[in-house]
Amino acid sequence: MSQYQAPLNDINFNLFDVWQLDQYWQQQSELQDVIEADTAKAILDEAAKICEQQLAPFSHIADAVGAQLKDGKVTLPEHYYTAYASLSEGGWTGLSGDPDYGGMGMPKALSMMVDEMLCSADIAFSLYPGLTAGACVALLQHADEITKNQYLPKLYSGEWSGTMCLTEAHAGSDLGIMRTSARPATDDSYQISGSKIFITAGEHDLTSNIVHLVLAKLPDAPAGSKGISLFLVPKFLLNEQGEPVTRNGVTVGSIEHKMGINGSATCVLNFDNATGYLIGEPHRGLACMFTMMNYERLSMGSQGLGAAERAYQNALSYAKDRLQGRTTTKDPNKADAIIGHADVRRMLLNIKALNEAGRTFATWVASLLDKAKYDNCQLSAQRANLLTPITKAFMTDRGLEACVAAQQVFGGHGYIKEWGMEQLVRDVRIAQIYEGTNGIQAADFMLRKVAVDHGAVLKALLSDISIEITSAPNNTSVALQRAISGLIQHTDIVLQTDLKVMSQNACDYLDAVAYVLYGYMWYRNVKALDSNKHSADFINAKQQCAHWYCHKVLPRVEGLLATIAGDGAALFALEDVQF
Amino acid sequence: MSQYQAPLNDINFNLFDVWQLDQYWQQQSELQDVIEADTAKAILDEAAKICEQQLAPFSHIADAVGAQLKDGKVTLPEHYYTAYASLSEGGWTGLSGDPDYGGMGMPKALSMMVDEMLCSADIAFSLYPGLTAGACVALLQHADEITKNQYLPKLYSGEWSGTMCLTEAHAGSDLGIMRTSARPATDDSYQISGSKIFITAGEHDLTSNIVHLVLAKLPDAPAGSKGISLFLVPKFLLNEQGEPVTRNGVTVGSIEHKMGINGSATCVLNFDNATGYLIGEPHRGLACMFTMMNYERLSMGSQGLGAAERAYQNALSYAKDRLQGRTTTKDPNKADAIIGHADVRRMLLNIKALNEAGRTFATWVASLLDKAKYDNCQLSAQRANLLTPITKAFMTDRGLEACVAAQQVFGGHGYIKEWGMEQLVRDVRIAQIYEGTNGIQAADFMLRKVAVDHGAVLKALLSDISIEITSAPNNTSVALQRAISGLIQHTDIVLQTDLKVMSQNACDYLDAVAYVLYGYMWYRNVKALDSNKHSADFINAKQQCAHWYCHKVLPRVEGLLATIAGDGAALFALEDVQF
Repeated sequence: MSQYQAPLNDINFNLFDVWQLDQYWQQQSELQDVIEADTAKAILDEAAKICEQQLAPFSHIADAVGAQLKDGKVTLPEHYYTAYASLSEGGWTGLSGDPDYGGMGMPKALSMMVDEMLCSADIAFSLYPGLTAGACVALLQHADEITKNQYLPKLYSGEWSGTMCLTEAHAGSDLGIMRTSARPATDDSYQISGSKIFITAGEHDLTSNIVHLVLAKLPDAPAGSKGISLFLVPKFLLNEQGEPVTRNGVTVGSIEHKMGINGSATCVLNFDNATGYLIGEPHRGLACMFTMMNYERLSMGSQGLGAAERAYQNALSYAKDRLQGRTTTKDPNKADAIIGHADVRRMLLNIKALNEAGRTFATWVASLLDKAKYDNCQLSAQRANLLTPITKAFMTDRGLEACVAAQQVFGGHGYIKEWGMEQLVRDVRIAQIYEGTNGIQAADFMLRKVAVDHGAVLKALLSDISIEITSAPNNTSVALQRAISGLIQHTDIVLQTDLKVMSQNACDYLDAVAYVLYGYMWYRNVKALDSNKHSADFINAKQQCAHWYCHKVLPRVEGLLATIAGDGAALFALEDVQF
Repeated sequence: MSQYQAPLNDINFNLFDVWQLDQYWQQQSELQDVIEADTAKAILDEAAKICEQQLAPFSHIADAVGAQLKDGKVTLPEHYYTAYASLSEGGWTGLSGDPDYGGMGMPKALSMMVDEMLCSADIAFSLYPGLTAGACVALLQHADEITKNQYLPKLYSGEWSGTMCLTEAHAGSDLGIMRTSARPATDDSYQISGSKIFITAGEHDLTSNIVHLVLAKLPDAPAGSKGISLFLVPKFLLNEQGEPVTRNGVTVGSIEHKMGINGSATCVLNFDNATGYLIGEPHRGLACMFTMMNYERLSMGSQGLGAAERAYQNALSYAKDRLQGRTTTKDPNKADAIIGHADVRRMLLNIKALNEAGRTFATWVASLLDKAKYDNCQLSAQRANLLTPITKAFMTDRGLEACVAAQQVFGGHGYIKEWGMEQLVRDVRIAQIYEGTNGIQAADFMLRKVAVDHGAVLKALLSDISIEITSAPNNTSVALQRAISGLIQHTDIVLQTDLKVMSQNACDYLDAVAYVLYGYMWYRNVKALDSNKHSADFINAKQQCAHWYCHKVLPRVEGLLATIAGDGAALFALEDVQF
């Protein structure tokens, strides 16, 4: 069975040493009374306890039992109920919620760290509070005051949960062709009819109500994605006291049998003249939903990192315990721990170097979102916008890479269910797919985040990094500076190509940018080391890891840039029938 | 449910056009009366039918039902019994077996193609005939005449099956520390006692007897791997007529619950004073077993390719059917097939380019083994020896890459069991692990195949390729020549490093060599094109695919070589406790 211990040491290092967010929090009027370093540490400690004690030890049971549909009701693994109650009671479900509606008002940088721990403990479970938090973000931004007062306090408190209902059987990435309809009723509500698939947490009895955010088309809707509106469709309609009493016309048709995240109820939901309430402007639903999507995309990054962290911890522990082969002993009847084998050690160090950079990256992006929110800082908003698809795609791709490598460390035992490593591979795999596949993230990055302004936001960022690492160099600077130069040069080449060429290179380009930015994360890690605060072991680990990253991981960029530079004319010269 | 159609067109192209093996077969006295192009095609057609009709349509059932242990007996998915009977009746289980003992005497190049089809149809099923064939190779080479006459005809005919019993709970990659013991009995047999784990096809009722090849230690065994002997331990001991009648002391303790290949019975086998017969010399068992291991390692390559081929076919079909987004149509209510999206097309073309190179590579290695066997050609033997770890590691790593990418083409549907894509990912994953992990393959390649002779065999091969592509250039030659030069240069650098540095670079180095050799496979594909024999579609597909490979896949080598050249001092400068 796989173990988990929250990496609080590295989390605190990122929050308080690398990004010095406690200092930032103290400068913000909205935050200075809410949070300081000690509060944050206490919150993280408590979250760690729930993850380590109530979720992680039972995640294999959640996998085996799964969500079960019987007679139109979905039941979840037993320990989900108690763990969810603990989360709700502690106020975790409204951690970054707006205090005006009962949220705790904590910064995103903090909730991102809690997300990582929840995902390490059980990705499937993390989706229930995760979707709820996303729904709250959309409601807070787009709903009217009455709706916010009716729904947000119950969602923040964990009494109710949320979903996002986008996909239909024939309309996934292409929402413009969806068919779910919304007819105006006699009051100010709408009658929603249609069928949605892949609805995470679509039906369950964890909470007394479920608040579905549903995309549908009004009768007068323009064609395509500009004709989609957003509706709030509660499982139970509220009475005048705001209590959920009347069953609405939404039912679960079936639940999917999936590769992993079996504890998550992935539902087909049928809306049959269900009562819904318009959120935001008519036909502007996709923009509203993107508020939620962008929130979720960051959470996907936490899923990649969370699984990778747990995979690493277990592979490391196995590599120290498992005796095979002789690296130091001469006795042919004895064997040494496999961590001494260069290839095993290499796999572990690759995972460690990518995970820790990923944690710094996640904290960075979250802190940029905080700065955009609390300071209305446009530069931070632009950069968070630029980095969101990287957080989603790169962190989940590296998540699979880490879980597969960690499974490999176990040899044959990695393939056996009992050890838990294969579940991590199965669970993390979904994060590359949902909330917009990683290919769609890459296209978004290449076209809408980089090409759209001829690379201006990206280049300004790279220029700032370049100045920073030159003015205060450390053991990462030379390799990093070289990588940045190569990246800028290739960016100029890429930006001169046409749409099809940019699209076919988008995934490799996103990866190249990400590896360079992870190099910057290692620069920041090393820069934050302080022999007065950190142990000699911690300092050496960070410095060696930074060195490893810059010399044995960052060179992957050369392969990516060479691939991007390669002539891809064959892609469309090969006709469909010739595939 | 995932489909499968055997790629007979490309298989025939490889056998008869790329490598012109029909001409070679006609020159060999042992083969000329056994096989010609038409016989080979007929054999492949029949094998394709079994795979397409009796196995592939039911592989999802085999996954769901799995092998089941009850009261000491293992039962398999129902259709396995009929499919196995078809294989046996057609003589497939003895396809490349020695005719002196009832085998069909077909060349390895042909059986390798059948292996690929079986693995596409169902990797788990393929292991039953696969292990049997491996056991036959070991017995043929190391057993005495009486034993061969007793066992080989029954194994070739499929009446009995074989296993290889190596791993113990504490001894996997490190067999030297195994504890299973063999005590001499009063006759010429031995009493085998101990417990073996991960025994594929260890117990089942597909066949009337199971022939276990077991590694164990004699009482006077030297310590370590030089003290291991090989024993034949039949499930049922034979009477004087050679019929299996007396149950031997080997029982199944449990079967493993695995990530995939659920139709394969992976057993814990307990040997309790089981009667065994020494095969080969005392203490030389590991060398005998390696005969079988090397055979199996080639089959692992077929598992990677087989799964990748089926993944490709299904992703291609889905990409042509699935309408999302607009690439040509302007109507916002309509959508085009996703094969028109550059990123989806890129994923498909990457898989296709790697699969077809892989098939040419597999045929090549098999034909080298044939030349070593029938002509006693030392050069071919050396090269087959060099390429074996690449076949195992690279083809299985690319197998996972292909299955994951193909699953990604399906978007959310790829994660749902119903579509069969996630099963391919789960099934193929084992091939990177068993028969020596891919890390061990890389170490074997780097140290025992390349460093051992200062790169002589490899460099001679690269030199021959270089001369060939220069003397008769085609559209792959320039890129390939450049890659070869870079590889040779880095090989010289690698060979000057110490054991630890070579070991930590072994995986990347194996990959770099493999990508270059796959480039040569594309050179050979293009070279074999003939407008008198091949359709315009086929020729354009091959030429574009070759171009794509050389310009958009081969550049990966630059990242690998840059990584190898990077300073990896941090790997051991980071101490165990600092991980």
